[in-house]
Amino acid sequence: MEENVIASVSKPTILKLGGSVITIKGRPFTPNKKAIIRLAEEIARSNVNSLIIVHGGGSFGHPIAKQYEINRGYKDPSQIIGFSKTHQAMTTLNRLIINALIDQDIPAIEIQPSSCIITKSGRIQIMEQRPFTKLLRMGFVPVLYGDAVPDSETGFAILSGDQLISTLAMRLNADRIIVGADVDGICTADPKTDSSAKLICHISLSELKKLLPKIGKAKAPDVTGGMVGKIVELIPAIERKIPTIIVNATKPNNVYKALKNENVVGTIINKGGNVAKSN
Amino acid sequence: MEENVIASVSKPTILKLGGSVITIKGRPFTPNKKAIIRLAEEIARSNVNSLIIVHGGGSFGHPIAKQYEINRGYKDPSQIIGFSKTHQAMTTLNRLIINALIDQDIPAIEIQPSSCIITKSGRIQIMEQRPFTKLLRMGFVPVLYGDAVPDSETGFAILSGDQLISTLAMRLNADRIIVGADVDGICTADPKTDSSAKLICHISLSELKKLLPKIGKAKAPDVTGGMVGKIVELIPAIERKIPTIIVNATKPNNVYKALKNENVVGTIINKGGNVAKSN
Repeated sequence: MEENVIASVSKPTILKLGGSVITIKGRPFTPNKKAIIRLAEEIARSNVNSLIIVHGGGSFGHPIAKQYEINRGYKDPSQIIGFSKTHQAMTTLNRLIINALIDQDIPAIEIQPSSCIITKSGRIQIMEQRPFTKLLRMGFVPVLYGDAVPDSETGFAILSGDQLISTLAMRLNADRIIVGADVDGICTADPKTDSSAKLICHISLSELKKLLPKIGKAKAPDVTGGMVGKIVELIPAIERKIPTIIVNATKPNNVYKALKNENVVGTIINKGGNVAKSN
Repeated sequence: MEENVIASVSKPTILKLGGSVITIKGRPFTPNKKAIIRLAEEIARSNVNSLIIVHGGGSFGHPIAKQYEINRGYKDPSQIIGFSKTHQAMTTLNRLIINALIDQDIPAIEIQPSSCIITKSGRIQIMEQRPFTKLLRMGFVPVLYGDAVPDSETGFAILSGDQLISTLAMRLNADRIIVGADVDGICTADPKTDSSAKLICHISLSELKKLLPKIGKAKAPDVTGGMVGKIVELIPAIERKIPTIIVNATKPNNVYKALKNENVVGTIINKGGNVAKSN
């Protein structure tokens, strides 16, 4: 049955709204209401046929998840209430986004990862996608988010919005991924510290992979301006020929232009070195 | 895998919080905050080991669902935004309940029916229960609710909290069902119109079934005071020997006493005519 449902869905666009775009950094539980309303208006105006939105946690999910060390898995009963609080913070943020979308007459519907996903050591193991695939096919806009989810090995885990995007893109055979970030895209160096840094407009997967060793194994700063480290998770989807574009969603109309397939400042990543015309 | 997970869960108690208890009737989108806080405190004080809560929609879900005729299934594109609004109203109410529970240090976690359930002509067809069963086993309190859900035959449907309770009770082999209503239980007649009406303290399933024809097929008033019509949905669970008690959750301490297995005014329904001692 699952196969049939998916086959009849037109290829969806997957849009990520970064946590740093929709919340105010460094101010816990503070939404960027202006940005949320603007983005809802851009999404409505673009009138994309089949759309899934995934948003990050920003100043909502991260502080509590960090306080209770949810990403380490279940170690101690005192974390249990922290998991509840982390999830509740995320649904609170999600509610604001859905309200803004509904206000624009977009039939948005929250899809709660912790209700339909189990990870195994942090990687998606079980994902019940039939309910939201059915809704997507009917014209709804499912809105998912990075979430605290049950984990079959570690008790619970943090499922990042980026892992979710990549998995959704592959499972639903997405048309493309649009990453709405708080930077213009991937740069040749970190523009915050290096004035010679330039935006890379097009990059192939093999070129992207060459940048990876520069970032270092774990905690070293991302010399490309932070984006490569963040989009590593998307590589499996790009390998399956799902083109990905990073745009700066803090700047008006970028998300709109990306959704409309119009020219926009940003970084396009695709499997080959060539840019598909539709991007 | 599903079997293993369920087998290791201690038998959960399923508590229904009626929509008319947690919201104010006739005033759309108005929660009964006092009742919500009191009930959260009673649930915390009872300290039940394994608990699932299901709540109704009351003045949140019903007005929008009715306005857009969601219960008729998908007939017209104009209903799509109504489905989104109905679900959003339910998550708004759910958020208030979860917040009250978390304030009492109860690790409550929203489980969103429309993320994990598909109905077929209004009856549960697919239910992904592994994520919340896993959370239940870890000590979380899953909180579900009547919701607008995708439907494989009719496009979408309204899934009642009562159908959800019955299905959960059977699938998770529940210890018991506690229905927190706005009346004392099942009466011999409607206490609102008949002063001779008496509360039935114990009733067997066969006696309950004898009351059904009195209620009439559909829209005739429920002569027993409304409860029999509402709990018809629970009959399959009661048939599987899951005892069910109806208590008046608008009166303080009734839910607490029921959770603690203490004597409480209400109606106990079980398969045989005899009352189990634990109830």
